[in-house]
Amino acid sequence: MEFSAQQIANLLNGRVEGDPEAVVNNLSKIEEGLPGTLSFLANPQYTHYIYGTQSSIVIVNNDFIPEKGIGTTLIRVPDAYKAFAQLLEVYNEIQHSKNGIESPVHIAESANIGEDHFIGAFTYIGNHVKIGKGVKIYPQVYIGDNVVIGDNCLLFPGVKIYANCTLGNHVTLHSGVVIGGDGFGFAPNGGETFNKVAQIGNVILEDHVEVGANTTIDRATLGSTIIRKGVKLDNLIQIAHNVEIGQNTVIAAQTGVAGSTKIGKNCMIGGQVGIIGHLKIGDNVKIAAQSGIGSDVPDGAILQGSPALDAGAFKKSYVFFRKLPQVIRDLQSKK
Amino acid sequence: MEFSAQQIANLLNGRVEGDPEAVVNNLSKIEEGLPGTLSFLANPQYTHYIYGTQSSIVIVNNDFIPEKGIGTTLIRVPDAYKAFAQLLEVYNEIQHSKNGIESPVHIAESANIGEDHFIGAFTYIGNHVKIGKGVKIYPQVYIGDNVVIGDNCLLFPGVKIYANCTLGNHVTLHSGVVIGGDGFGFAPNGGETFNKVAQIGNVILEDHVEVGANTTIDRATLGSTIIRKGVKLDNLIQIAHNVEIGQNTVIAAQTGVAGSTKIGKNCMIGGQVGIIGHLKIGDNVKIAAQSGIGSDVPDGAILQGSPALDAGAFKKSYVFFRKLPQVIRDLQSKK
Amino acid sequence: MEFSAQQIANLLNGRVEGDPEAVVNNLSKIEEGLPGTLSFLANPQYTHYIYGTQSSIVIVNNDFIPEKGIGTTLIRVPDAYKAFAQLLEVYNEIQHSKNGIESPVHIAESANIGEDHFIGAFTYIGNHVKIGKGVKIYPQVYIGDNVVIGDNCLLFPGVKIYANCTLGNHVTLHSGVVIGGDGFGFAPNGGETFNKVAQIGNVILEDHVEVGANTTIDRATLGSTIIRKGVKLDNLIQIAHNVEIGQNTVIAAQTGVAGSTKIGKNCMIGGQVGIIGHLKIGDNVKIAAQSGIGSDVPDGAILQGSPALDAGAFKKSYVFFRKLPQVIRDLQSKK
Repeated sequence: MEFSAQQIANLLNGRVEGDPEAVVNNLSKIEEGLPGTLSFLANPQYTHYIYGTQSSIVIVNNDFIPEKGIGTTLIRVPDAYKAFAQLLEVYNEIQHSKNGIESPVHIAESANIGEDHFIGAFTYIGNHVKIGKGVKIYPQVYIGDNVVIGDNCLLFPGVKIYANCTLGNHVTLHSGVVIGGDGFGFAPNGGETFNKVAQIGNVILEDHVEVGANTTIDRATLGSTIIRKGVKLDNLIQIAHNVEIGQNTVIAAQTGVAGSTKIGKNCMIGGQVGIIGHLKIGDNVKIAAQSGIGSDVPDGAILQGSPALDAGAFKKSYVFFRKLPQVIRDLQSKK
Repeated sequence: MEFSAQQIANLLNGRVEGDPEAVVNNLSKIEEGLPGTLSFLANPQYTHYIYGTQSSIVIVNNDFIPEKGIGTTLIRVPDAYKAFAQLLEVYNEIQHSKNGIESPVHIAESANIGEDHFIGAFTYIGNHVKIGKGVKIYPQVYIGDNVVIGDNCLLFPGVKIYANCTLGNHVTLHSGVVIGGDGFGFAPNGGETFNKVAQIGNVILEDHVEVGANTTIDRATLGSTIIRKGVKLDNLIQIAHNVEIGQNTVIAAQTGVAGSTKIGKNCMIGGQVGIIGHLKIGDNVKIAAQSGIGSDVPDGAILQGSPALDAGAFKKSYVFFRKLPQVIRDLQSKK
Repeated sequence: MEFSAQQIANLLNGRVEGDPEAVVNNLSKIEEGLPGTLSFLANPQYTHYIYGTQSSIVIVNNDFIPEKGIGTTLIRVPDAYKAFAQLLEVYNEIQHSKNGIESPVHIAESANIGEDHFIGAFTYIGNHVKIGKGVKIYPQVYIGDNVVIGDNCLLFPGVKIYANCTLGNHVTLHSGVVIGGDGFGFAPNGGETFNKVAQIGNVILEDHVEVGANTTIDRATLGSTIIRKGVKLDNLIQIAHNVEIGQNTVIAAQTGVAGSTKIGKNCMIGGQVGIIGHLKIGDNVKIAAQSGIGSDVPDGAILQGSPALDAGAFKKSYVFFRKLPQVIRDLQSKK
């Protein structure tokens, strides 16, 4: 899709300076600008790039005063950064603006799908599924029986949702996400083998949850695994059965949370963190990457290490770990 | 599906106390009971919940004597926990009781599929595949040429099995599992680039193996990667080429085992453990979460740390690590 | 498929010693040889196996002189190892020699696909996709709008490529790989919730890149996430938005690289390593498994630990960590 400088200026309530017919079909950073792309200049440290950029159009602040000649077309707006973010949004919405139902798909007769939907080819929608308005479901998605999906959700290709799970509104699931796989429950049966504990609960994802590619969230044994409003999970994360994650908590890639642990609100958890089962993690907790959490954590704690300590204490201990051979030898030779 | 108290009592050889027409369509914990659900009471610590629960039916032991009035219908059985586990099983079997072949599917003419099967839409079954009786294959599964699958296996949506791999009986694979991807074999070719070493072996999963969502098990370079009878693998685990895992070993999420390592029987391996290649891990070994194993491990060892030590020794060393700044300063100031 | 000793000798320019009609349909290690398989003997330490092997055919060096009777058919060649590797290649090519387009598939009218292709059932190819010659696309693959794929690429079942990404020539992607998922970008919006930062860049995989099963590579916010020529990524790896990985770098399973980090050429990075965002890792760097990298790394460094130190220094410190209780107690009792 191509847009002219004038079209973009109209969209942003901006003013063109240069060629209103200049066209772009992509966005770029000003320092990496290419012909046919649009960039923005907001940070004064990047000002020098504007004189040499190959971007066809650059959005600038109204008060920008060039110090030399500029070869590109400008669009002047009150706040170039905000205007650009607005364009990103528009661009993104265009990406996901497909409508209708492709063919072939499998949609159970008892499924109920709201208006303004897109359902890509090879997607499977099971019995008694309920889907709200404005939901975009890419190809090759699986939605098991009795799943409920709210409004304006976005499911990327290959998402798998097991039976009986529930999604709120504005939930985004990336490719390869598995919602509702069986929890890892096996009871020793006296000998050396195990009986599987049937896992009959579900997963509930509340509004505005986003889940990254190939992340897995297991169903509860009984009851629900719950991901609260606004939680953001990165790629390749493991959330076990009966876990609950509080509102607006953010978790980076490859972290794992074991069964029945409850995590509070507004936590920031780094990548590759491991949290064992049946713990209570408070609100506003920060956990450094690769930490291992083996006991309850109070509100506001900042942790690091495996097993984790207070992050400040860990860093101090680690300073001594680094110089341990020298320190010990000095002490040993002291007398 | 709804069941009455009388129907459930008949199934469990129990006795109804209350309304035999009370109906339920789901199970719940007694402390989270909702109308229309069935709970159980086995642990005496939970007895107080029975007087206030909203569950419509509660399974109790024959010898349970209420201390006050109870608003719910009871089913008395010899062992309430066992009876409930039995119901979970039944519930679970109903979930996976679909039969027949949905449309469209791709099934090679040379494939051979036993009776009592379910094959979901968009599933692909390659040439010369052999599948036993009672196998349930959900939608969007891929089964490559020459794969052999035993009886009563359960393949969830989106499982991928590369050519020539073999599954025993009662094998369960969750969504996103990849069986038989190429091992990570690249030989430096003199310069700075690599030649791929062709990976032509396969993967063998023996009876009663269960593999969690998005776990990957690579094919052997030559020969077989072997997962022995009763092994349980959690989600997002990596098993490299030519690995062998002994009977009834259980491995938690996000652990990785590098090429050609042999792990013994009845081991319990925590989450996010890393085990390097070409090792021999004994039987009955326990490895704590996030440990790193870099050398052979004898039978019965209990390990922790990265690199791993005996778990007791690790914990003792870690106690000193925690207080290292203080201990060292005390020693330095001693004289 | 069966091949006779004579057919194989012709292929390898070798000479049959024994039964030219001996047939094999698989390859095996000489120490695990089975009837109907072909093995090779190159390493003198394995010579004793040849007298008892059950392999039907063994490839040996021209200068091999048996010390006793041999029951199997030999094929003599100048270099047995090279000849065997050549056979592995041939075997592998036969595996992926399918041609044509299966049914049903979804191929946009505007897509352009080169000759000598294979496209498996249930694969989806979006608008304006360009695909080169000799590309083999297995079933259930998703290729988003505007994706460009070079020649001779191999996409295994279930690969997902988001819109606008680019693959060079000879790129191999294993099952479950996700290319181009949204980067994990969320800006706090003043309160406790987050606004998603639209991710409109792409991913570029250069020639001869191979990506293991269920690995995820996120698209750039703006611009490109770039994986340079000859990079090999193992399974379950996370590569975040705007990362760049230099030529011929090799990364083992379950490692994660956070946003905007640049990794140099010819690096060898172990499994379960974590690298935080916005770093610069030099060329020829080696990083031990499970290490955590929190700052820039110069060319040629060898690192271990979390946080990582020079690997030699880490090992020395860890020796003291192991014996810390004893060392400290000795020092404390010294006086």
